[in-house]
Amino acid sequence: MVVGRDIDDLPKNDANYTALTPLWFLDRAALVHPTRTSVIHGSIRYTWQQTYQRCRRLASALAKRSIGLGTTVSVIAPNVPALFEAHFGVPMAGAVLNTVNVRLNAATIAFLLGHSSSVVVMVDQEFFPLAEEALKIWSEKSEGHYKPPLLIVIGDESCDPVALKSAMRRGAIEYETFLETGDPEFAWKQPEDEWQSIALGYTSGTTASPKGVVLHHRGAYLMALSGPLIWGMTEGAVYLWTLPMFHCNGWCFAWSLAALCGTNICLRQVTAKAVYSAIAEHGVTHFCAAPVVLNTLVNASPEETILPLPHVGFRVTHTYGLSETYGPATVCAWKPEWDSLPPVKQARLNARQGVRYIGMEGVDVFNPETMQPVPADGATVGEIMMRGNLVMKGYLKNPKVNEEVFANGWFHSGDLAVKHPDGYIEIKDRSKDIIISGGENISSVEVENTLYQHPAIFEVSVVARPHEKWGETPCAFVTLKPGVDNSDEKQLAEDIMKFCRSKLPAYFVPRSVVFGPLPKTATGKIQKHLLRAKAKELGSVSLSKL
Amino acid sequence: MVVGRDIDDLPKNDANYTALTPLWFLDRAALVHPTRTSVIHGSIRYTWQQTYQRCRRLASALAKRSIGLGTTVSVIAPNVPALFEAHFGVPMAGAVLNTVNVRLNAATIAFLLGHSSSVVVMVDQEFFPLAEEALKIWSEKSEGHYKPPLLIVIGDESCDPVALKSAMRRGAIEYETFLETGDPEFAWKQPEDEWQSIALGYTSGTTASPKGVVLHHRGAYLMALSGPLIWGMTEGAVYLWTLPMFHCNGWCFAWSLAALCGTNICLRQVTAKAVYSAIAEHGVTHFCAAPVVLNTLVNASPEETILPLPHVGFRVTHTYGLSETYGPATVCAWKPEWDSLPPVKQARLNARQGVRYIGMEGVDVFNPETMQPVPADGATVGEIMMRGNLVMKGYLKNPKVNEEVFANGWFHSGDLAVKHPDGYIEIKDRSKDIIISGGENISSVEVENTLYQHPAIFEVSVVARPHEKWGETPCAFVTLKPGVDNSDEKQLAEDIMKFCRSKLPAYFVPRSVVFGPLPKTATGKIQKHLLRAKAKELGSVSLSKL
Repeated sequence: MVVGRDIDDLPKNDANYTALTPLWFLDRAALVHPTRTSVIHGSIRYTWQQTYQRCRRLASALAKRSIGLGTTVSVIAPNVPALFEAHFGVPMAGAVLNTVNVRLNAATIAFLLGHSSSVVVMVDQEFFPLAEEALKIWSEKSEGHYKPPLLIVIGDESCDPVALKSAMRRGAIEYETFLETGDPEFAWKQPEDEWQSIALGYTSGTTASPKGVVLHHRGAYLMALSGPLIWGMTEGAVYLWTLPMFHCNGWCFAWSLAALCGTNICLRQVTAKAVYSAIAEHGVTHFCAAPVVLNTLVNASPEETILPLPHVGFRVTHTYGLSETYGPATVCAWKPEWDSLPPVKQARLNARQGVRYIGMEGVDVFNPETMQPVPADGATVGEIMMRGNLVMKGYLKNPKVNEEVFANGWFHSGDLAVKHPDGYIEIKDRSKDIIISGGENISSVEVENTLYQHPAIFEVSVVARPHEKWGETPCAFVTLKPGVDNSDEKQLAEDIMKFCRSKLPAYFVPRSVVFGPLPKTATGKIQKHLLRAKAKELGSVSLSKL
Repeated sequence: MVVGRDIDDLPKNDANYTALTPLWFLDRAALVHPTRTSVIHGSIRYTWQQTYQRCRRLASALAKRSIGLGTTVSVIAPNVPALFEAHFGVPMAGAVLNTVNVRLNAATIAFLLGHSSSVVVMVDQEFFPLAEEALKIWSEKSEGHYKPPLLIVIGDESCDPVALKSAMRRGAIEYETFLETGDPEFAWKQPEDEWQSIALGYTSGTTASPKGVVLHHRGAYLMALSGPLIWGMTEGAVYLWTLPMFHCNGWCFAWSLAALCGTNICLRQVTAKAVYSAIAEHGVTHFCAAPVVLNTLVNASPEETILPLPHVGFRVTHTYGLSETYGPATVCAWKPEWDSLPPVKQARLNARQGVRYIGMEGVDVFNPETMQPVPADGATVGEIMMRGNLVMKGYLKNPKVNEEVFANGWFHSGDLAVKHPDGYIEIKDRSKDIIISGGENISSVEVENTLYQHPAIFEVSVVARPHEKWGETPCAFVTLKPGVDNSDEKQLAEDIMKFCRSKLPAYFVPRSVVFGPLPKTATGKIQKHLLRAKAKELGSVSLSKL
């Protein structure tokens, strides 16, 4: 009676199996909405048909130079159309797209280009000097093995035309000229295997060398469909590029927008005014933003704020993830029963990292020693781990670390969290950011969350400062809101500590408060390792001082 | 410089690869919205947590009876909660779900159960006598090889409790009792291979034996995500089950609803009143419907129509597909530029089958001889063919037909169509429905579309009637709208033919018009083969008669 054989003796064939790839979304967008605006950048408007042709030109131009399967094309650019196009054009040639954070220094970029063996470097004209310096360092360090990559410079109407000319004189081919060499009807090849790599992105690497996260076509496809479902984005969405595309491929939204036949609003630089203008002018429906961007919007001056907006207001969907998970791995899915709660309670619930994304089959908090899930008690801290189709292939040329992060069949995120009774997880800290005071763990995130409630504080970061007796104590680095009177820092610091004492266990209260701007990565992440170094420089808090 | 090896030497592991399956959506829905209503049926309300537990009970109960990988579980039921649950519970046991059209006769159902080697038959109490008769026929025809399947009867509060008792006396186990034997926390096994079969569904088979369409977990997952994106369905959608779940798994919407954590409104019977009531009472956001259902809604009497509705109105998204493509393969994607057109023009544009679904990589119209796409001229007729991840695995135990339908790496739909200059395809006919008159092809669909504009016609179907001179001529079978005076059928027929002459080429005009109800399949498809037989019975139109 078992029909297993019959049921399953139906093999894959060309009609019923295709490697998953987000590249088909672009083909479809050009077919379904050829005249709809795909990309807006300053005075530039492209339609989906034009974007498809430009991407095929790029793929064709690369293919003509024998750039294809297994080669890496690096792009150093902010959110400009060329970077969007590279998300399709590069993999359409079979190559792998390496997006480079434009705020990295030349030495780090040199490392990235060398480590990824980039054969092409596309660079936005503003960052051409940086790229040149990086190439110089790479060549010097390569001990004669250096083969100069093809250098393509991307011009921008908002930048100095003289600088573009100068880049071209120095051997770079201009992007538009390069596209001209490609065929707009190029018959791009779909990947034969959906496990084929589509993108490479280096993690900030605060301690060791940056690690190259390798993503595949399958994951990019699945993430591109998951995002819109989670975010309630529908066909024709208008998306504002506040999140850098070089940051984890903009959480795969470049590919989502093609699936939705939507419109991309590019932004070279994120300012409150630019964001408000884009919303008012283009009817933006969605954008992603690190907390710092939201903070900027909320605290924007009246001159920067354009009102009324075409929408009712902002609705914040809180997500959490890593480069290693194609972007967000969890979402704090809003529950209807929260609607009637007071705002403070709502904020506290919504500040949790939440539950797994559609497309990510497993997210849980484990005791990394026993690999048992922690109880859902909102108190027991464990490590967030993921498994599923939205976990990276692995780190490039890093078998040792790959073995570690994939141990026991789960991806180890390195983030410490608790699981609440409703199954929602909440980050307590990065493993390395936890402060250990007198043997007790202090979540730096928890201290920060309290400090953010202080009316004078714009931004804050809490790290460990060495302490004679307790080993470590919390040290808060604080930026004040515009207009706050900072003439008496000592008084302010005392006020802040007093505020904390009223809300936190005594040993959680920062023993030192330092005022000034916070060092940040390109994506707005505060660089805690620099603050830790600074706290160390402050020296150990001696017992006599207390 | 080639990093191909490094880039791709990152194998799959348990952390970064999971077989795609829609079953995870249910696990997620129960985690994210455990208390949200999942299923409504009459006075019954389940939450997602309850649904998940009931599905795991079902899987567990099946597994306890050694029903798992490679076995088929058949369900004969209208849109009731048990059929929804079977979409998860059956594959969670590793088995394959065969949904049976309740309007089939006993002999056909006997064939289906035998052909699929069903080891379990779940049957709604209303259809228990039908199932019993089918089992009897199966057993008689099996020449001693018949092993009675496990018979489960699904009770319904709206049905006669005596009939349920009687079914139980006749050896069937009651569904709720069966669930009681299962573990609500059953650790269901995900499929090891996403190519594993999840469902089986028999096509109506108007001419030959029904063919068993086999679908896999991968396709079910991808279709479940594609549907909502095409239809603009977002998280928490309220879906009304007008489309039978036994029809191609309700186009995979059973699984979509879990992905969206939405609410299913079940319907035993589709009537205008029931649909309007559900919309008004439950705030239905979406439902699927064959044209006959929409027709019923539009022509509903004032007593059946409940107004005002909570929504502004109906927006029709026109899709086209087959059981072999998991449901819709194309959508007539609405273009903003159509908004300003007159309604007749809008209707004509929207009546086209349109463009490929997200998730279906290729849909085109080919000359089946040369396998060249037809020109996009809106005139050249070819066969619609599909390729991609939303094409079935194949027909069960039917290698010869599989070879034919997958010839040249495309699935041959058997539907004839043209491609318009905008790339949208439009069906002209089924290959077998085309009428050949004097060597000229007549699209029966085109004649029908014209007839539908006649004010007296409710439904119409046009088939070939033998003709002495021309070989075939069109014969129209017509149902009139309620209230139309049908006392003089001859006059009416003449009026209809005159109407056609003013709009169609002379040889397209039906030479005979027959009044009466139209024979239909369970999904509302008109059974043209029966009408063709009827037309044949009418005899050849002799020359003298004209």
